[in-house]
Amino acid sequence: MRVGLLGCGNVGAPLLQLLTTQADEIEARTGLRLEITRVAVRSASKERGVDIDPALLTTDAAHVVADPGVDVIVEVIGGIEPARELILAALAAGKPVVTGNKELLANVGAELFAAAEAAGKDLLFEAAVAGGIPLIRPLRESLVGERIRRVLGIVNGTTNFILTKMTEEGAEYGDVLAEAQRLGYAERDPTADVEGFDAGAKAAIIASIAFGARVVAGDVYHEGISGLTSSDIDYARKLGYVVKLLAIAEQSADDGSIGVRVHPAMVPTTHPLASVRESYNAVFVEGEAVGNLMFYGRGAGGMPTASAVLGDLIDAAANLRKGAHASLGSLAKADIRPIDDSSSEYYLNVEVADRPGVLASVAGVFGAHGVSIRAMEQEGLGDGARLVFITHTAVERDLQATLHELRELDSVHRVVSMLRVVS
Amino acid sequence: MRVGLLGCGNVGAPLLQLLTTQADEIEARTGLRLEITRVAVRSASKERGVDIDPALLTTDAAHVVADPGVDVIVEVIGGIEPARELILAALAAGKPVVTGNKELLANVGAELFAAAEAAGKDLLFEAAVAGGIPLIRPLRESLVGERIRRVLGIVNGTTNFILTKMTEEGAEYGDVLAEAQRLGYAERDPTADVEGFDAGAKAAIIASIAFGARVVAGDVYHEGISGLTSSDIDYARKLGYVVKLLAIAEQSADDGSIGVRVHPAMVPTTHPLASVRESYNAVFVEGEAVGNLMFYGRGAGGMPTASAVLGDLIDAAANLRKGAHASLGSLAKADIRPIDDSSSEYYLNVEVADRPGVLASVAGVFGAHGVSIRAMEQEGLGDGARLVFITHTAVERDLQATLHELRELDSVHRVVSMLRVVS
Repeated sequence: MRVGLLGCGNVGAPLLQLLTTQADEIEARTGLRLEITRVAVRSASKERGVDIDPALLTTDAAHVVADPGVDVIVEVIGGIEPARELILAALAAGKPVVTGNKELLANVGAELFAAAEAAGKDLLFEAAVAGGIPLIRPLRESLVGERIRRVLGIVNGTTNFILTKMTEEGAEYGDVLAEAQRLGYAERDPTADVEGFDAGAKAAIIASIAFGARVVAGDVYHEGISGLTSSDIDYARKLGYVVKLLAIAEQSADDGSIGVRVHPAMVPTTHPLASVRESYNAVFVEGEAVGNLMFYGRGAGGMPTASAVLGDLIDAAANLRKGAHASLGSLAKADIRPIDDSSSEYYLNVEVADRPGVLASVAGVFGAHGVSIRAMEQEGLGDGARLVFITHTAVERDLQATLHELRELDSVHRVVSMLRVVS
Repeated sequence: MRVGLLGCGNVGAPLLQLLTTQADEIEARTGLRLEITRVAVRSASKERGVDIDPALLTTDAAHVVADPGVDVIVEVIGGIEPARELILAALAAGKPVVTGNKELLANVGAELFAAAEAAGKDLLFEAAVAGGIPLIRPLRESLVGERIRRVLGIVNGTTNFILTKMTEEGAEYGDVLAEAQRLGYAERDPTADVEGFDAGAKAAIIASIAFGARVVAGDVYHEGISGLTSSDIDYARKLGYVVKLLAIAEQSADDGSIGVRVHPAMVPTTHPLASVRESYNAVFVEGEAVGNLMFYGRGAGGMPTASAVLGDLIDAAANLRKGAHASLGSLAKADIRPIDDSSSEYYLNVEVADRPGVLASVAGVFGAHGVSIRAMEQEGLGDGARLVFITHTAVERDLQATLHELRELDSVHRVVSMLRVVS
């Protein structure tokens, strides 16, 4: 099986290494001889830390796709173009494609899935979500008969690293971010990670596969972690929670509408997601029949991601040999539920004037919007007095209206923070 | 697709219910119409808590297998015979088989896999290990190109429930077992669970798939949890560990030999397996490229197990339609490493005479057998004085020789307990 590799960077290079060192083992296990016969790169002279026969290298990716000496395409360039055009060309030429490109799938996945279906060839993308963790295949295959109600994912390693440090060392966001940047865990411009865009793209892909519907990155509501303080994390701990950046995808059992969002959330310390530390990822799946599942592992890194690509590549090659291909079926149009219509429990921390009657007036605002309070605590005295609330399940719109009106109250100095709570 | 169901008990009945209520959804997602057309039961008059057309029922399982009106067979009878003969007959008749029968696969799996391969039909068995958790498919497919070094599994819900109660409530083994029996979590005769036989069968299947080798239940060394005391668990906690019953399968990177064993082990509290509570299962996989993975969920129960069977059934039906089948390749002969040759860190708790020179003589015994001590603590005084050791990694044979000689020492009253430690 002759493999054309598009891109030889931090995933392509380890993949090449895995294929070189393990070709014999893979052949013994599967009967497939996988050989990389062409490698498209931006610069043929760059040092990649892996042995490549220079004769394989080309800077013309379209040529690799069209080459009759290539049976299967692996796309690890990233970005939307030219990856999209190259994949469409490969499928049109009857070549299965393996990709780890989340941005592409979260934006134009439906077009690519349809092209794969029309060509009767595989388009596999395990590496696009949660790196090395087998997640897409279990969702596509093992759980295709399962009514999935909700998926909660820690799918961004950078933010989980930062939150772990804030939680375990009491450090402030800015300091930990700077450390993460020094260690190479965070980019110089960390926006895509810390503001939830990266997690949002993954959430869209997870929702598409879990619910069999066309969900794109633009459908995902997101809030990041840059506004979190060590005090938020401290309050959470006292109440029995840890703060995690979650990608949440849920489908209503009533009307089938789909909500997809990314935001920091308070997770009970006894929940399996609470013990996912450092840069690890985990995806928690709630199914009607199967109950709760969790998939845990390395969400990023060259080797883990290359391992996921390799699993897909073996599958695509095996399918090509037997003339079969995996199918996503036809994805339905998604009825996206806006964030305002979503429900959650909420944590609110409000700085108030410390005088009689304040609690009554604050509680009155909650009541007027139909938001019911599950627990309340007053902390501190005088100017720094705080009221900390956890609500029962409420609708986001009502909670936002409550927040808005609280801010207008004379007795409320400021709303210090609001966090959604996983129940 | 016409399905013949062999057995309609605690997995078969929920499967029938899932297929009835979700047939339309499954058809919309996959294009497959799954219909149960025959159901073999031991007694046609038994109440099953699920609507079955009495015309489908028969007490003749062989007849269901042979029926030309049945395309796919689901075997959820359990036990070795007649399940084995029925599955062989189904495969010989060109019918794919889905089974959740761990006892069967752990004993005669190789024969069945070979029969499936010869017939060119699926033999799928996700439900046989860790109930509803997608584990076998990720191991077979996603990780087929991965060099797996070690698998650590909590694969028995009953014992994990008992150990969770002992840990969190300080209760004694006997009391918790009695409670588990009252709640229906443990059988009246709990031997298969508490002595590690159930986990051992699952360990054999996991080792077979993870390492592509023929490992059977008889290859698995096992120790159960019935000898554990609340004091063991207390000591573990003080040292930063929890005690779990682990199924361990590992392959040596040097000579490819495979060790498979089940025993209680001390797991560091920061390890993801440590937070797997109550009757949940989880399987932790250590791969060379992918790093650490964990799969978590319900390891038993009718609905979760039926969900796993349903995923396989849809896959088998889809494969049958397109003339494909999943393949395990050919399993190699396993070179089984005996427990004596395995390595681990060890915890030892020794009751000694409280007099000068005792530590020196005890430590001397360790040294004489090449077992190096990582940490030691003395607890108590006088007659109840105890020495608690944690060793560096040592070979089991040397540790056993150490234990043997310690028991002969005048200054050692008794070896209170020995536990292996997961590093």
